[in-house]
Amino acid sequence: MKEETHKILIGGRWREPREPARSFAAVDPTTGNSLPGLYPVSGFIELEEALKAARGAASELRPLGPDALARFLDLFAAAAEARREELVAMAHRETALPEEPRLRSTEFPRFAGQLRQAAAASRDRSWCRATIDTKLNLRSKYGPLGGPVIVFSPNNFPFAFNAVGGGDFAAALAAGNPVIAKANPGHPGTTRLLAEAAFQALHASGLPLALVQMFYHFEARDGLRLVAHPLTGATAFTGSRSAGLHLKESADKAGKPISLELSSLNPVFVLPGAAAERGGEIAAELAASCTMGSGQFCTKPGVVVLVDDESGRSLLEAMKRNFEAQPAGYLVSENVLAGMQKSVDALLRARASLVAGGRALEGPGFRFANTLFRTTGRLFLSAPEAFAVEVFGAFSVAVLVEGFDEMKEVAARLEGNLTASVYSARSGEDDTLYDRIEPLLRPKVGRLLNDKMPTGVAVSPAMVHGGPFPATGHPGFTSVGIPPSFLRFAALHGYDNVRPHRLPPELRDENPTGRMWRLVDGEWTQRNI
Amino acid sequence: MKEETHKILIGGRWREPREPARSFAAVDPTTGNSLPGLYPVSGFIELEEALKAARGAASELRPLGPDALARFLDLFAAAAEARREELVAMAHRETALPEEPRLRSTEFPRFAGQLRQAAAASRDRSWCRATIDTKLNLRSKYGPLGGPVIVFSPNNFPFAFNAVGGGDFAAALAAGNPVIAKANPGHPGTTRLLAEAAFQALHASGLPLALVQMFYHFEARDGLRLVAHPLTGATAFTGSRSAGLHLKESADKAGKPISLELSSLNPVFVLPGAAAERGGEIAAELAASCTMGSGQFCTKPGVVVLVDDESGRSLLEAMKRNFEAQPAGYLVSENVLAGMQKSVDALLRARASLVAGGRALEGPGFRFANTLFRTTGRLFLSAPEAFAVEVFGAFSVAVLVEGFDEMKEVAARLEGNLTASVYSARSGEDDTLYDRIEPLLRPKVGRLLNDKMPTGVAVSPAMVHGGPFPATGHPGFTSVGIPPSFLRFAALHGYDNVRPHRLPPELRDENPTGRMWRLVDGEWTQRNI
Repeated sequence: MKEETHKILIGGRWREPREPARSFAAVDPTTGNSLPGLYPVSGFIELEEALKAARGAASELRPLGPDALARFLDLFAAAAEARREELVAMAHRETALPEEPRLRSTEFPRFAGQLRQAAAASRDRSWCRATIDTKLNLRSKYGPLGGPVIVFSPNNFPFAFNAVGGGDFAAALAAGNPVIAKANPGHPGTTRLLAEAAFQALHASGLPLALVQMFYHFEARDGLRLVAHPLTGATAFTGSRSAGLHLKESADKAGKPISLELSSLNPVFVLPGAAAERGGEIAAELAASCTMGSGQFCTKPGVVVLVDDESGRSLLEAMKRNFEAQPAGYLVSENVLAGMQKSVDALLRARASLVAGGRALEGPGFRFANTLFRTTGRLFLSAPEAFAVEVFGAFSVAVLVEGFDEMKEVAARLEGNLTASVYSARSGEDDTLYDRIEPLLRPKVGRLLNDKMPTGVAVSPAMVHGGPFPATGHPGFTSVGIPPSFLRFAALHGYDNVRPHRLPPELRDENPTGRMWRLVDGEWTQRNI
Repeated sequence: MKEETHKILIGGRWREPREPARSFAAVDPTTGNSLPGLYPVSGFIELEEALKAARGAASELRPLGPDALARFLDLFAAAAEARREELVAMAHRETALPEEPRLRSTEFPRFAGQLRQAAAASRDRSWCRATIDTKLNLRSKYGPLGGPVIVFSPNNFPFAFNAVGGGDFAAALAAGNPVIAKANPGHPGTTRLLAEAAFQALHASGLPLALVQMFYHFEARDGLRLVAHPLTGATAFTGSRSAGLHLKESADKAGKPISLELSSLNPVFVLPGAAAERGGEIAAELAASCTMGSGQFCTKPGVVVLVDDESGRSLLEAMKRNFEAQPAGYLVSENVLAGMQKSVDALLRARASLVAGGRALEGPGFRFANTLFRTTGRLFLSAPEAFAVEVFGAFSVAVLVEGFDEMKEVAARLEGNLTASVYSARSGEDDTLYDRIEPLLRPKVGRLLNDKMPTGVAVSPAMVHGGPFPATGHPGFTSVGIPPSFLRFAALHGYDNVRPHRLPPELRDENPTGRMWRLVDGEWTQRNI
């Protein structure tokens, strides 16, 4: 019996794939077996159809305005909530992430909350930073890009970063752009259910049905063409560094914006006073942060830098105990497992010492022991490219440095990262050292933390989930935080001497909501002009 | 007798070039002869020395803060003003741009005004968009990139866009970055005088002397290495499309931000009612805008789209008369002259008809007759790549379309541009047509104008001098307008749980100036927390 091949969402309807050359199934990470259902690998003809349909949707959307978009985002959140149990069960089956406390009580509410925050920001309109010079009659604001945003989603967040409904999706839409979503092949069923909820919300909200389109997969070469296509507005990619760099090269050549989240080590520096004062406490925090979600977070601490003194060594000893005590969870895919094994081999070749874990676990499914390596500052500095490599999974490297000067050298050799954390003594005795290491770390990271692990990424306007290359593609943006994350998918639109009735409502003399913040003649105000 | 080779400004002092492999002289555009003085072509060793010196300057700058930067920018403006006559004479000699009304009374005051606006914005600090979430203790703001900005300057604005002291320079510095300036080889003497004024101001302000460094020239391949260097923060390039694309490719590959201004046609659409109502008036505005500064503006209208009816044809006739009546000025370089001749040949091959000009003028120096072509909508649409090409100089193409539908097709086929202007009847009779063409133009341009030529670019926070590729490299930025132009050279810096005394002053509870605008818990305010 031939298994059902799922339909793709394109041009406002669910369609049979056109001559599906290939299809694939999702895999149950707890068994390694295929899950029911086949998902098509789409061809470039269909991608071009989607681009054309998106162009149509963009022009239909234009007169409808931000309130209509907000209505859709709210309805979508509600439609997804109505199917929450089905979604949680499917996401659990496809990713093996625990239903509790992860999928149902943490990630799903964050997902729905993001959509509602995006809806609120769309209604509020302040995100577009309307700027008015009344003397010269010059007016500007951020607006849509004029083409769809192609969203590629990662394997580790089936809800919060799903190509349908996740953070990039919400930001791209709220900024006024159609979305063409590419499911992560690790959780196509979850993405299908979310696309069904989105489609239902599109119907209910009266927005153009081709505003959200969804593919399960396409060949890598077609992805390269898609991000560079003249009809494309921009791309959002969260995933592996190598795939992301190929997409970046293609988009860059065509002059198309691409928002990338590629890789990050999230180094944690423990200053000597902190290690002496509360090493055990920090070790427990580190182990929890490194193993949470089986270490499959982009903000997982991949490198911990400690001084090789008694406190540092005993902190490492405590980390080892914590790593070993923590049960190893399932990984979302066989690729993650293979990556961990490969990295163990590479680190052993680089003469790092294995402290804990280092091997796949027996039994069915994808599990790998929580893995901790140690190396010296000298070895790290002799070949940072061997040690400073992101490894997905519960996997970290402790770098024991001879003293603070070597710690500074390690900091100076790091590439761009999403985060860096510095733990210092509560007593203040590390303050001088902090002042010396901070200037090295600040330009290298998006978010600098004190006495805190980087794994919690709150959705706040003041959150920075970004950083210099290769953490992302541009250090001036954040991919988390509503509304600032919208700016990745916005164009700056100037209006010079444009007749008043032709201006977008946000730039007319009358404040369109009575509450929107605008920068008028140098002053932020909610008033009319 | 061997002529003097000028020194470069590097590492805080004026230095003899290290083994100058080559040197060059500036050329007097009115004669084609070399001007006195030789300028070295620097090698990569010197560029790397500059990068290292800039790194030192960046860390010395950090504790000094924005007021010190502002003081420098103000002192620089004053130092340049003290040498204004010398500067105006030199710029005139090197570019042949008229001293009056252009260099002395227009461009120089704009130049000095930009520096002072940047100083004021640096003091004010609101540009960094401090964002504070008091509940989560998350704080963010824009900050420096952590490496110098390499500024490549164009040939057409010896003051306002000079790599030393022009708009990109002021924006990069005010955002807290050192600058490594590359002079435009068309006006090395002007750049030298400006660098002397900057150096004097650095001394007087007590800022690190390597904050501003200056080279006259280097090989193209060394430029490619420079923009991709690990120590480089970002690059600003305004110039030719082909040179810019090479730099972009190199910077993109290394993940280094690059702000580009490459090329723009600045199309002007004259709706039929406007042509009938005031065709003569519009023709005069067009001719003035196209020939101003010998057409050497990045916002010069390169394409004018008119309906081929009686009013349209008579507007074109009036344009022809105006083009012919306007005397042709000198061009800044022989390259511009050669480009115009090449473009005449290309347009004739594409079967466009020459309406006015089309040839270099007799006599010494670089002059080319004001040149106007006409073509049909059909021809344009059959090969837009032949017609939609930026030509520097007083050179425009009128596209006579059969009717409004063809005008829309022309709009739809344009690439990204800095500006588009739409002229419509004052009576309102074109309003329906405007509403149909605006949605096609809006996503393609940075600045949309009504009833106005694009050549005036006011320095205002609401100005947008940007646009989609290939006008620039990213549609979310503007290169004119203080302070928004700073954001091209800024990184978004997040602080998570950072101890209060370690926060930058802009993010502490107390407002550091008492007047700085900050976004606190969703509200723009000047208050303390």
